[in-house]
Amino acid sequence: MTTDVRSAVWTRDALLELDREDPLAYCRERFVLPEGLLYFDGNSLGPLTHTSRRRVREVTEQQWGRDLIGSWNQHDWIHLPLQVGAKIAGLIGAEEDEVVVADSISVNLFKLLASALELRPGRRTILSDTANFPTDLYMAQGLAQLEERVRLRRVAPDELITAIDSNTAVVTLSHVEFKTGELRDMAAIQDAARENGALVIWDLAHSAGALEVDLDSCGADFAVGCGYKFLNGGPGAPAFIYVARRLHQRASSPLFGWFGHRDPFAFDTDYVPADGVQRFQCGTPPIVSLAALDAALDTFQGVDLAELRRKSMKLGDLFLDLVEQECSGFGLEIGCPRDAERRGSQVSLRHPQGYAIVQALIERGVVGDFRAPDVLRFGITPLYQRYVDVWDVVVVLRKVMETEAFEDSRYRRRGVVT
Amino acid sequence: MTTDVRSAVWTRDALLELDREDPLAYCRERFVLPEGLLYFDGNSLGPLTHTSRRRVREVTEQQWGRDLIGSWNQHDWIHLPLQVGAKIAGLIGAEEDEVVVADSISVNLFKLLASALELRPGRRTILSDTANFPTDLYMAQGLAQLEERVRLRRVAPDELITAIDSNTAVVTLSHVEFKTGELRDMAAIQDAARENGALVIWDLAHSAGALEVDLDSCGADFAVGCGYKFLNGGPGAPAFIYVARRLHQRASSPLFGWFGHRDPFAFDTDYVPADGVQRFQCGTPPIVSLAALDAALDTFQGVDLAELRRKSMKLGDLFLDLVEQECSGFGLEIGCPRDAERRGSQVSLRHPQGYAIVQALIERGVVGDFRAPDVLRFGITPLYQRYVDVWDVVVVLRKVMETEAFEDSRYRRRGVVT
Repeated sequence: MTTDVRSAVWTRDALLELDREDPLAYCRERFVLPEGLLYFDGNSLGPLTHTSRRRVREVTEQQWGRDLIGSWNQHDWIHLPLQVGAKIAGLIGAEEDEVVVADSISVNLFKLLASALELRPGRRTILSDTANFPTDLYMAQGLAQLEERVRLRRVAPDELITAIDSNTAVVTLSHVEFKTGELRDMAAIQDAARENGALVIWDLAHSAGALEVDLDSCGADFAVGCGYKFLNGGPGAPAFIYVARRLHQRASSPLFGWFGHRDPFAFDTDYVPADGVQRFQCGTPPIVSLAALDAALDTFQGVDLAELRRKSMKLGDLFLDLVEQECSGFGLEIGCPRDAERRGSQVSLRHPQGYAIVQALIERGVVGDFRAPDVLRFGITPLYQRYVDVWDVVVVLRKVMETEAFEDSRYRRRGVVT
Repeated sequence: MTTDVRSAVWTRDALLELDREDPLAYCRERFVLPEGLLYFDGNSLGPLTHTSRRRVREVTEQQWGRDLIGSWNQHDWIHLPLQVGAKIAGLIGAEEDEVVVADSISVNLFKLLASALELRPGRRTILSDTANFPTDLYMAQGLAQLEERVRLRRVAPDELITAIDSNTAVVTLSHVEFKTGELRDMAAIQDAARENGALVIWDLAHSAGALEVDLDSCGADFAVGCGYKFLNGGPGAPAFIYVARRLHQRASSPLFGWFGHRDPFAFDTDYVPADGVQRFQCGTPPIVSLAALDAALDTFQGVDLAELRRKSMKLGDLFLDLVEQECSGFGLEIGCPRDAERRGSQVSLRHPQGYAIVQALIERGVVGDFRAPDVLRFGITPLYQRYVDVWDVVVVLRKVMETEAFEDSRYRRRGVVT
């Protein structure tokens, strides 16, 4: 699939030609992109879309400002978490009624971990791997501290499948590893879990909106994901939660919030969970942020996800080809799978001065991010990135490598959000 | 304090005179208020402020749209939860480092309930009263289902203090009862809990920004509150959490999110809680909604909370006086304390056709809300309400009572959000 890109000697003109032929080129104008910026950090914070810009104004100034409390019915704020969930469902291989938007990815993970443990009462192990996103591991640690019978077991990624056993209540994993971009084999892991009677929770933070996810056809149990990366929902956009329909009446959230109640406006004194995935909502959702996410999802309208994935793989292959072609001899190593089929929608490079290099790139208008101790991470976002952008990024990278002294104290490390 | 309002026979002109003398009159222009609307639902959803309108545009269009991921540092999004918490602290009698904004009120209640139970390991009872806000009770039920040793005990409000005993780990209560507006005696309940070795979690949803709250001077332990009622932070605005400083190093959240980690950007595989209240953060906060809340809090700048409370009590007394003066004989009952000192910043009336009456009022531009089975609830919000507004509301109420047939099917019940 990617042989048309790999192993060639690239020129900028050849890439301009690829852009002219790009069937997704029309999507770029849906985004508000600062002039001259090469934004390769959509895997940390997706850019603003024109739809979200308009929608945030409308929800804030017309709905909240003018229609006030009546907006819960008049503008159907009350069903927005389910409506946005239904849109996300279409991106992750789920049915519309299997996804709802609520809380953060961390809180949703807590709900599902607790739910999975309740569904497997004789088992005590939450299994994960050492490459999982740290905050996912933290949430499991928190639950293990709260519930004495629970323990978190972490194994090396390549030992995960064999580690699933009759003590495993639930496996929790990132679908795409956040540093290396390595894509996990969802079907194989799900099969191994099923054979051992374990459940699986997938963290789709780096895959929803970036590549085809086939939750239903893999027989997935549970998933969570965030709204602010490839879904472009804005900083700290609410997260989503997926529960396979066969688990709807058995799985329950330990966070008995009124938005998960069967009849929230009855103000009953006892909690009765709503049917289906709706019970995984908790408190009142942040409507302005939620509306921004809702509008951002319209950016995917008419987009063939197979086409999106093809372009993502081509852009990633091109990036690595160009680094090899233009940046040899600077000590940069490839820190992600070279095989596009095994790689999520990002490329990772490694260099001992990685932090300084990322800062120098940012100063020159190329935005990627750094992950300790030595990873330079670049998000591949085919809806707005052009092939020629990848060329321009690598040209800047080469210039940085040629001219910078990375020991400089001005490149001291500061926090950058994933 | 309120004798200048009570027991008089009011005229509209007299109220216009009160408005001319009102030391808080200057605050009204800080709000975006629809022309002609009498908005008495600020206790469910506070209105938009001009500061929030501008700030939402700025955060969305300039910060997210232009500065993208760099905004976490450049615009200090990363510290916004603590900065907004510090502003709220000034409204609830807390020190700046005792409050942080995070998640929803429900999720925050879960964190504090679990924390309190961990601090009182030999005790198993969560004590509340039957008048507590239902969702607060739900959250306690959820925790009791998760942790077998825990049970939720509910008693009548007037039995609460005597029910606190050596089995009580934590008392959880609404500071202002959501239907009757009854204000609980924070100091007395806190004293009774302390004498019995129990902790207390206060739900300030209907008191923060509405009246003076003295957490520190009452020796309070924990509190939660929401951002979207009297704080005017917008629909579903993030909630806040208060932890008394003496508990900072002992209390811990069971939701180990990376925003509560001591060094989130190190991406350590093990959770180490941050110092202080910061550890009660969890996932990435919804920045646009959070910024709206931040800006809304500027509306309180320069406002003397004692003055705010005085006006709130006067408006409430006036409302009840006028209902008695203008609406006798319609079967309306007063459903809140007549004594302003015992009443939060709302008035409640009761009528068997309450839902229909509230709908009829809304159709005539008077927005209050209905709480089953028979409560008409009107939020008193002294920052923008005028004395003459209360007159106008009661005049409309009288007209509705004189002319409407409440059996009409068009007044069938729909959901309205608290």
